[in-house]
Amino acid sequence: MSENIFDNIPKPADKEFFERLLLKNGLKIERIVSFGHATPELEWYDQKKDEWVILLKGEAVISFLNGDDVRLKAGDYINIAAHKKHKVSWTKPDEESIWLAVHY
Amino acid sequence: MSENIFDNIPKPADKEFFERLLLKNGLKIERIVSFGHATPELEWYDQKKDEWVILLKGEAVISFLNGDDVRLKAGDYINIAAHKKHKVSWTKPDEESIWLAVHY
Repeated sequence: MSENIFDNIPKPADKEFFERLLLKNGLKIERIVSFGHATPELEWYDQKKDEWVILLKGEAVISFLNGDDVRLKAGDYINIAAHKKHKVSWTKPDEESIWLAVHY
Repeated sequence: MSENIFDNIPKPADKEFFERLLLKNGLKIERIVSFGHATPELEWYDQKKDEWVILLKGEAVISFLNGDDVRLKAGDYINIAAHKKHKVSWTKPDEESIWLAVHY
């Protein structure tokens, strides 16, 4: 009945892995696995929904269009308002970084 | 801009600690810290909303009225439908157990 967020980690690849864990009542929960990935240089995420995201393993930096950089370690969480443009500018290259994202 | 789910752990006390992290758009995200706590013997949680919950530290057992027991370790997550009666029948006594619960 339960599953583990740290199980079945895919092998390192060219892209991040997005895996939907739940989709119900307008809520989406997903796991994201990064291996040193960053959002491409000139792209920004511009999301229709608010996102609450927690980094559960690894390290990362989220950068915002306004110039703010937020460095995250395991356990750090942040709320990103809809349409607040952001990108993942860095993730730890030598191990996987695991995110839990709640889109609501 | 970010906070850490493992920071500011309260001292062990008689009761579990429930801390709201987010309340917006009908979504509630909370942190629960248990120190060997269990739901009282004759009580069951009977929640109006669905709950997606992940154990981030410690160990626990969730029991359901139908007799199912689900043992959880760090990283294990489970979805509990609204009105599915359940209780926390055990948490690890010698360290804190930290839950992240999404009520939606």
